[in-house]
Amino acid sequence: MIHSFNPRTGESFGDPFPLTSDDEVDAIVEAARAAGPAWRSADRAAVLDAVAAALEANVEELWQAADAETALGETRLRGEVARAAGQFRLFAQVLRDGGYLEAVIDHATDQPPVPDLRRMNHPLPGVVGVFAASNFPFAFSVAGGDTASALAAGCPVVVKAHDGHPRTSELSWEVIRGALPDPALLGLVRGLDAGKRLARHPSVSAVGFTGSIPGGKAIQELINERPDPIPFYGELGSVNPVVVLPSAARDGLAQGFAASLTLGVGQFCTNPGLVFVPDDVELLTSLTEAVAATTGGPMLTERMHGGYLRGLTRLGKLTSLAEGQPGEGAFAVTPQVFVTDLPAFAAGLPEIAEECFGPAAIVVVYGDPAELPAVLDRLDGSLTATIHATDPGEAGALAEVLLRKAGRLIWNGWPTGVAVRWAMHHGGPWPASTAAAHTSVGAAAIRRWLVPTTYQGWPAELLPPALRDDNPLGIPRRVDGVLS
Amino acid sequence: MIHSFNPRTGESFGDPFPLTSDDEVDAIVEAARAAGPAWRSADRAAVLDAVAAALEANVEELWQAADAETALGETRLRGEVARAAGQFRLFAQVLRDGGYLEAVIDHATDQPPVPDLRRMNHPLPGVVGVFAASNFPFAFSVAGGDTASALAAGCPVVVKAHDGHPRTSELSWEVIRGALPDPALLGLVRGLDAGKRLARHPSVSAVGFTGSIPGGKAIQELINERPDPIPFYGELGSVNPVVVLPSAARDGLAQGFAASLTLGVGQFCTNPGLVFVPDDVELLTSLTEAVAATTGGPMLTERMHGGYLRGLTRLGKLTSLAEGQPGEGAFAVTPQVFVTDLPAFAAGLPEIAEECFGPAAIVVVYGDPAELPAVLDRLDGSLTATIHATDPGEAGALAEVLLRKAGRLIWNGWPTGVAVRWAMHHGGPWPASTAAAHTSVGAAAIRRWLVPTTYQGWPAELLPPALRDDNPLGIPRRVDGVLS
Repeated sequence: MIHSFNPRTGESFGDPFPLTSDDEVDAIVEAARAAGPAWRSADRAAVLDAVAAALEANVEELWQAADAETALGETRLRGEVARAAGQFRLFAQVLRDGGYLEAVIDHATDQPPVPDLRRMNHPLPGVVGVFAASNFPFAFSVAGGDTASALAAGCPVVVKAHDGHPRTSELSWEVIRGALPDPALLGLVRGLDAGKRLARHPSVSAVGFTGSIPGGKAIQELINERPDPIPFYGELGSVNPVVVLPSAARDGLAQGFAASLTLGVGQFCTNPGLVFVPDDVELLTSLTEAVAATTGGPMLTERMHGGYLRGLTRLGKLTSLAEGQPGEGAFAVTPQVFVTDLPAFAAGLPEIAEECFGPAAIVVVYGDPAELPAVLDRLDGSLTATIHATDPGEAGALAEVLLRKAGRLIWNGWPTGVAVRWAMHHGGPWPASTAAAHTSVGAAAIRRWLVPTTYQGWPAELLPPALRDDNPLGIPRRVDGVLS
Repeated sequence: MIHSFNPRTGESFGDPFPLTSDDEVDAIVEAARAAGPAWRSADRAAVLDAVAAALEANVEELWQAADAETALGETRLRGEVARAAGQFRLFAQVLRDGGYLEAVIDHATDQPPVPDLRRMNHPLPGVVGVFAASNFPFAFSVAGGDTASALAAGCPVVVKAHDGHPRTSELSWEVIRGALPDPALLGLVRGLDAGKRLARHPSVSAVGFTGSIPGGKAIQELINERPDPIPFYGELGSVNPVVVLPSAARDGLAQGFAASLTLGVGQFCTNPGLVFVPDDVELLTSLTEAVAATTGGPMLTERMHGGYLRGLTRLGKLTSLAEGQPGEGAFAVTPQVFVTDLPAFAAGLPEIAEECFGPAAIVVVYGDPAELPAVLDRLDGSLTATIHATDPGEAGALAEVLLRKAGRLIWNGWPTGVAVRWAMHHGGPWPASTAAAHTSVGAAAIRRWLVPTTYQGWPAELLPPALRDDNPLGIPRRVDGVLS
């Protein structure tokens, strides 16, 4: 059984939720698979809009359930429901736009003799398995971007709920299913064993995951054992290096850092865990003061609380720069910032740069910014990398290195906050992601669940509308080499 | 040492080629990696055109070297050099078009407050490892589509040469290197151990492979053992089912099949290995006669020759429908076609449908075409699936099944012949490919070697030209949600 826990008290509450048995997982996956064909030809954009509306209509119940299980608070959780709804709406827009189909037509030619060829994307044939994250009970959970993008693509989805918020998962599931033409299109399973069964299931065609590096590795191993290699889109750990160059504007810098570090009790995959700063006493003082002015809070689960404390033990070998006020609650933690210098940091790689999930960071003091690229080049992949500077000319060599190290490059900003947009890329080199070419946030997230088909000499009557000469859907297409 | 063999005589000839040692592999990969940064900013389109011209300028020497090692003949091999050159030219066109960059710009908004976001593709940071195929000594070997598309993307390439044509590999390598600004951009290694070293090398960011299912599985296992999961684009086995519906035009059908079956001594990954036909004596007679009129030839290597004979032993449990004339030469084989009925075929699945690489096929006679979809649904994935019919109305249910079974659907044609076009998809569900979303032929093949980056609030001076507001490259982009 899985129990809801209150992170403020550490106590369980409410009725527990049963673990899903292997037979139940099989039945749920098969029911989802069977619902697939009708879903492919449904008006999915309209349904996604209806899901968004349903989430918004149930925001009261949803945020309250999530707050009881996560202690993330009303403002954040209302915002997150809105974000989840916004994701469904973005994908409705993506479907109406039609560019995601990547329709290409090459008419036949006589010289050389080449047949008529037409290509477009289709949904993966089976079911998409989604492993929900703990830290975003809506936006990266049952109602999250993986679910939204896979449903948008035309794939049925079975979510392995995160144990950290079982009631919120159940509620989200009910709300979404209520807006789907066939409730079997979204399945929900609970428990570690059910997750394993899901990743191994022959009818599962791809897996999306948001979580830790060890968790991602474990699922990758299950998938490696399958007879058929299926794509595994895991978004794992990230330290998100931030480089403050000497020219950086000092106003608000320390406050911006402290706010980003402690947002959601530091439980963001884009948390700024590593900050490189010039040897500037005033800056270090302002960072210390800003961090000291923060307050911690309860982490999401007992396990994450324990993980953070273990991480602090590891980081405790460094000098403490600042700590915030202790938070309140059973799983509460204190923001902690450590300091070291560039040579010591370089000597401690790679262990020193391991992610400590929560509101902890290392400030690395450098002397000459010219020494930064060689050290940054030794970092593992991250979701983001940030440069603070007022003089772009100062950042060229650094930008070149960071381009290889992160999926998103940020200028004079902070990495927390991942906009759900066409141009977003939320991914990065391993271990930030298992598939650096793909994003789990933004319009391009739909591509993970699509495969192309080419139709050769295919009769017009049988062509999908997207590939007919008269372009009845009015979508962007590349015809005879020209995008139009 | 690796020796050239003459498939017509079975004898080795010429100077042998040394195996590449581990140290040499490391040096070649590192030299390639070091050549990467300059290549990213080179005029790659012009270089690819120069490579194409160099291949054409050396066609005499190239086809003769390949014929001595493969016995594929002048016409085919001249054609294949032209095809290889054409692939380099297509990718030059892809680069000039710029759509492959998938540039997306979302300007900042105030309500809600969202920063400026710009996304585009970049080449993978390291080296692309390519495992060459035996059956296309140019188009899927050193000068093949994997090399062309990876160089186009901006990645240095190290090819593991196929042992079946070492001299052709060496010559192709020299010709291409001569046209590259830095010869280290294309490395060549020889031998199984060198291939393993390549797949495991930390500086290798992705691997392309064309070959057998066991070969592909072996490389996948090496990659699974890496600490970092890198993409593995393997194009493996395929039986390419062909369904002849009752309404199919009979004129030329049998001849078309026999020609496709025996093209290149059946050594095509798109060889039609499985043909479903109605119970029609006249059609079966014409198929028998057409196959009987074919002549075999030498297979590429002793090993493939042995593999074909083993495959025939397996298929020999079926009734022989027809056989061609024996070919000449040491590694020569005879085209063989077997026959069975649909219930017996269904009962023999999955073993009965295993690929037998070479000019062999099974003709499956069905009674009621309505029984076909359920049986076809049990087939493994293929690169292609073909329907012959004059009445599209007859094919609807079948097309729906085949869509899930193959990457390319062909109407009234034959699967051999893979046009190098924008709309080509040469891939398919496992085991046709390890990554069904990707193609190894056609313009989209470049995508395998690209990863996106998002620039957030990035200063205009540091933005790549593809993302500047004034669009200096004049490429297609999506700006604020609209493709233009």
